[in-house]
Amino acid sequence: MQRSELPVTLRERVQGVVEAPFFQNTIITLIVVNGVVLGMETSPEIMDRYGELLLTADGAMLSVFVVELALRIYAYRGRFFTDPWSVFDFVIVAIALIPASGPFAVLRVLRILRVLRLLTMVPPLRRVVAGLLRALPGMASIGALLGLLMYVAAVMATKLFQETDPRHFADLPTSMATLFQIMTGDSWGAIARELSEDHMIAWPFFVLFILASTFIALNLFIAVAVDALPPTQVADEDFVSTSQSNQDAILAELRSLRSEVAELRSAQGGTETTAQPDDSPGTPPDTLTQQDR
Amino acid sequence: MQRSELPVTLRERVQGVVEAPFFQNTIITLIVVNGVVLGMETSPEIMDRYGELLLTADGAMLSVFVVELALRIYAYRGRFFTDPWSVFDFVIVAIALIPASGPFAVLRVLRILRVLRLLTMVPPLRRVVAGLLRALPGMASIGALLGLLMYVAAVMATKLFQETDPRHFADLPTSMATLFQIMTGDSWGAIARELSEDHMIAWPFFVLFILASTFIALNLFIAVAVDALPPTQVADEDFVSTSQSNQDAILAELRSLRSEVAELRSAQGGTETTAQPDDSPGTPPDTLTQQDR
Amino acid sequence: MQRSELPVTLRERVQGVVEAPFFQNTIITLIVVNGVVLGMETSPEIMDRYGELLLTADGAMLSVFVVELALRIYAYRGRFFTDPWSVFDFVIVAIALIPASGPFAVLRVLRILRVLRLLTMVPPLRRVVAGLLRALPGMASIGALLGLLMYVAAVMATKLFQETDPRHFADLPTSMATLFQIMTGDSWGAIARELSEDHMIAWPFFVLFILASTFIALNLFIAVAVDALPPTQVADEDFVSTSQSNQDAILAELRSLRSEVAELRSAQGGTETTAQPDDSPGTPPDTLTQQDR
Amino acid sequence: MQRSELPVTLRERVQGVVEAPFFQNTIITLIVVNGVVLGMETSPEIMDRYGELLLTADGAMLSVFVVELALRIYAYRGRFFTDPWSVFDFVIVAIALIPASGPFAVLRVLRILRVLRLLTMVPPLRRVVAGLLRALPGMASIGALLGLLMYVAAVMATKLFQETDPRHFADLPTSMATLFQIMTGDSWGAIARELSEDHMIAWPFFVLFILASTFIALNLFIAVAVDALPPTQVADEDFVSTSQSNQDAILAELRSLRSEVAELRSAQGGTETTAQPDDSPGTPPDTLTQQDR
Repeated sequence: MQRSELPVTLRERVQGVVEAPFFQNTIITLIVVNGVVLGMETSPEIMDRYGELLLTADGAMLSVFVVELALRIYAYRGRFFTDPWSVFDFVIVAIALIPASGPFAVLRVLRILRVLRLLTMVPPLRRVVAGLLRALPGMASIGALLGLLMYVAAVMATKLFQETDPRHFADLPTSMATLFQIMTGDSWGAIARELSEDHMIAWPFFVLFILASTFIALNLFIAVAVDALPPTQVADEDFVSTSQSNQDAILAELRSLRSEVAELRSAQGGTETTAQPDDSPGTPPDTLTQQDR
Repeated sequence: MQRSELPVTLRERVQGVVEAPFFQNTIITLIVVNGVVLGMETSPEIMDRYGELLLTADGAMLSVFVVELALRIYAYRGRFFTDPWSVFDFVIVAIALIPASGPFAVLRVLRILRVLRLLTMVPPLRRVVAGLLRALPGMASIGALLGLLMYVAAVMATKLFQETDPRHFADLPTSMATLFQIMTGDSWGAIARELSEDHMIAWPFFVLFILASTFIALNLFIAVAVDALPPTQVADEDFVSTSQSNQDAILAELRSLRSEVAELRSAQGGTETTAQPDDSPGTPPDTLTQQDR
Repeated sequence: MQRSELPVTLRERVQGVVEAPFFQNTIITLIVVNGVVLGMETSPEIMDRYGELLLTADGAMLSVFVVELALRIYAYRGRFFTDPWSVFDFVIVAIALIPASGPFAVLRVLRILRVLRLLTMVPPLRRVVAGLLRALPGMASIGALLGLLMYVAAVMATKLFQETDPRHFADLPTSMATLFQIMTGDSWGAIARELSEDHMIAWPFFVLFILASTFIALNLFIAVAVDALPPTQVADEDFVSTSQSNQDAILAELRSLRSEVAELRSAQGGTETTAQPDDSPGTPPDTLTQQDR
Repeated sequence: MQRSELPVTLRERVQGVVEAPFFQNTIITLIVVNGVVLGMETSPEIMDRYGELLLTADGAMLSVFVVELALRIYAYRGRFFTDPWSVFDFVIVAIALIPASGPFAVLRVLRILRVLRLLTMVPPLRRVVAGLLRALPGMASIGALLGLLMYVAAVMATKLFQETDPRHFADLPTSMATLFQIMTGDSWGAIARELSEDHMIAWPFFVLFILASTFIALNLFIAVAVDALPPTQVADEDFVSTSQSNQDAILAELRSLRSEVAELRSAQGGTETTAQPDDSPGTPPDTLTQQDR
C-alpha cells in the first residue's frame, strides 16, 4: 500500500484536492455569495455606498473560480473538455474574463449566469437539469411543427394586417412576437376585436391559430409526459424479463425431468412393458422416438 | 435480371426519378427557400429593392413544384389521388395557380401554405402530423359538447348583455368570439366587472361558464392524453400473451409428463402394485380412469 | 305469437312509437331547428322582419316537445321520473311553460337550454356527459379545499384592501370574484402593482394565493386524470387474475404429479430400494414422511 | 372488566369527552359559524348594525376553542405537541390571543385562518391536505431550479431595463414580481412591446424566459403527477412479488420432484439399467453426478 502511494504525482494530489468535499462545498458557498453580491449590485443605493467593496469581492471570487477551473483542467487534462458540465463551467467563467467595455458592455449582464454553476455543482439540481435535457430531443419534431405553424401564421398575419395594425403586425419579427403573445393567451381579445372592424377574417384567423397552437402544445406536453414515465415501463420490462427467465428455467427443468422419466420408462419398458407402446395417447412424438430406439 | 429490367417503361423511369433521395431533397430545399422568399415579400423595404427578383424566384419555384406534381401524377396515375398526403400537396400548389386578382386577391395570402408541404415531405414531421390527426376523432364528442356549451352560452349572453355591452355581445358571432376569449382567460375580469354594475348575474354567469368550459377542456385533454398512451397498454398486452403462451407450454409439458408417469405407474402396477390403488389420495379422477383400463 | 300480440294495450303502442328511431330522429331534428330559431331571435334585424314567424315556429316546436314528453310519461308512468335524463328533459321543457313575464322575464333566457336536450337524445353526447358527471364526486374534497382557500383569502383581502381598492375588494362577493379572476391569471399584475404602492404585503399575498390555488387546481386535475385512467388498471387486474389462476393450475398439476411419483417410488421402494433412504439429499421433509409410512 | 374501569382517571374521562363524535361535531359547527361571523365582520354596514353582537359571538367562540385545546392538551400531554395537526390548531388559536393592537394590528386579519381548522377536523379534507403535503418534497429540486431561473432572470432584467421601465423593473423585488406575472402569462405582451422600442433584446429575453419557465413548470407538474400515480405501480410491485413467489414455489416443487425421479431411476438403475448411462442426452450434469455415486 505504502509503495503505490508514495510516488503520488502533483497531478494526482491536485485531483484529490479538487474532488474533496470541503473544496466543493467552499466553491458552492462562493457561488451563492457571488450571486447575492451580483444581486446587490443591481441597486443604485447599495452601489453608491458599498460599490467598491462589492466589485472587489466580485473580482476576488472570480479569481477563485479561475484558479479552481485551472486546477481542474490541470488535474483532468483532456477529459475536462469532454465533460459537458465542465465545459459549461468553463464558458460561464470565461464570459466574465472578456473585457466588458465598448461593444461587449452587454456581457456584464451575463455575469449573473455564474450562479447557474450551482446546477453543475449541486447533485440534486444536476440530476433535475439532466432530466430536463433528456426530455428535449423528444420535443424536437413537435417543436419544429409549432415553429412552422408560427412562421406560416406570421407571414399570413403580416400580409393581412400590416397596414391596419402596424403596432402588432408591422413586419415578420413583430408578427411572430405578437403571435407568441397570442399563443400564451395574453390580451389577444383586444387585438382581435380592434382588427375585426376592418377584417372579417381576424376572429376566425386567431381562433384557428389558438386552437391549432394549443393542440400542438398539448401534444408536446403529452410527448414529454409520456417520456417522463419510464418507471412503470422499465418496471414492466424488468418484470417481463425476470418472469420470462424464471419461466424459461421452469420449462428447462420440466423438459429435463421429462426426458429422465421417458428414459426411466424406456428402461423399464425394455424389460417389462414393451408390449404396450400404444397405450400412451398423450405422449408427444419425441418420446416415441426415444422408445423406438 | 437484365431481361426484366430492359423494357423499363417511361412511367417506371419517372417513378424512379420522383422517388430518388436527391430529387426529394431538392424539392425539400426548394420548399424552404420558397418559404424564406415568401417571408421576405412581407417587407415593403425588401420588396422595393428586390421585389422583381423575389417574384421571379417565387414563380420559378412554383413552376418546379407544378412539374414535380405532374411527374408524380404521371408516375402513380390514380393512386396519386388516393394518397391524402399527395392530395394535400396538389391542393396547396393548385391554390397558387388560381389568378390572384379581383375577388381572389386574398388567395395570395394562402401561398405561404406551400411551406406546409414540408409536413408531407419530411418523414419525422409527417409522423408527428399523422399522430396529431389520429388524436382528432377521439376529441369529436367532447368537442361537440364544448361547441354546444358555447352556443347556448352565446345565445344567453347576447339576450342578457346585448344592450348593456354591445361592444362584446352585440350579436351571436360577437358573443361567441367574446366567450372564446373568456374561455382562454383573457381580460375577462374587466368585461365581467363592467357588466356587473347593471347585471347581478354577470359574475355567476362568467364564473360558471369558465368552470364548465375549463372542466370540459380538461376532459378533452385527458381523452387525448389517454389515447396517446398506447405503448404501455400494448406492451402489457404483448406481455400477457407472451407470458400466457409460455405458461400454456409449461402446462402442456406438465400434462404430457404426468400422463407418462401415470402410464409408467400403471405398467408397474399391472405387475407389482395392483394391490394398493387407494394409496394415492391426491391423484385426480382422470388418472384413476387410466388405471381402470 | 299472434295471441300475445293481439291485445296490445294503448300504453304499449305509445311506447313503441316513442322508442321508434324515426320518432327520436324527428325530435332530435326539431331540437336542432329550435336551437337555430332561438339563436336567430337574438338578432333585432331578423326579429323585425321575421319575428312573428320565428315566435310561431318556436311555439309550435314547444308544443311538439310537450306532446312528446306527455307520451313518454304516459308510456313509462312512474319509471319516467326515476330516470334522471327524463327528469332533465321534463324540467327543461317545463321552464318554457312558465309565463315569462313580470318577475319571471329572465326565464325567457333559459329557453335556449332546450338545446341541451341533445345531450340526452344523442347517445355519444350522452356517454360523454355521463363520463363527465362520474368525474365530479372525485373532485368534491379538493373542490371544497379550493373553496375554503378562496373564502379565507377573500376575507383577508377584503379586510386588507377594502379601503385602498374598493373597485376590486369592496366586499366579500367582490373580493371572491376578483380572487377568481386572479386565479385564472387574468390581469392580476396590474391589480397587485397598484395595491403594492400602499401595501407591502400585496405582492406576497397574491403570489402565495396564485401558487396555492394553482397547486390545488393541479391536484384536482391529477385526481380527475387518474380517475379517468381505468383501462390500464383493469387490464392489469385481469392479467393478474388470469396469470394467477394459470399458475395455480400448474402448481396443482405439479403437486398431483409429485404425489404420484412419490407413490410410485414408495411402491418400488417397498420391494427393492428400502435400503437407501438417506441417498436423496435434496428431497424435502414431506417426501421423507411419505417414505416413513 | 369492572375493576379496570372503576379507577378511571380524570385525564381518561377528558380524553373520552374530547374524542366523542358529538364534541367533535360541535367544534366543527362552531368553526363554520365562526367563519361566517368573521366574513360578516368585513361588511361596514353589518358591523354598524350588529357589530357588537358579532364581536361578542366571535369572542365566545374563541373562548370555546381555547377551552377545547386546553382539554386536549390536558388529555394528551406531551403527545399533543408531537402531532403536527394539533400544533397547527394550537398556533391558529394562539394567534387570536395576541393583543391585536399597535404593531400587531395586522394580526387581526389572520383570525380568519381559524377556519382552516376545518382541514384538521374533517377527515376527508385532512386526507386531501395530507396528500398535497406529501407531494411537496418531490417538487423541491425542480422548485429550486425555478427559483434560480427567476433570480438570474430578475438580476439580468433589472440591469437591462431598470432605467427604461422603472415601473416594472425598478429593483430586484419589483423585477421578480414582474417576472412572476410574466410567467403566469399576464399582460406580458404590453410590457415587452413597450421595452422593445429601446431594447432589441426585450422580445427574445421574455420569450426565452417564458419558454424556460413553462418547460420547468411543466416538468414540475409531471413530477407531481407521476408521484400521484402510486396505485398502478404498487399494484405492479405486488403483482411481481406475488407472481414471483408463486413461480418460486413452482420451481421448488419441480426440483424436489426431479430429485425424487432421479433417485427412483438411480435405484432402478442400480438393479436393472446400469448398462446404459449415456442414453440420456438431455440430462443435466447434476443428475449425472448423482448417478456416478
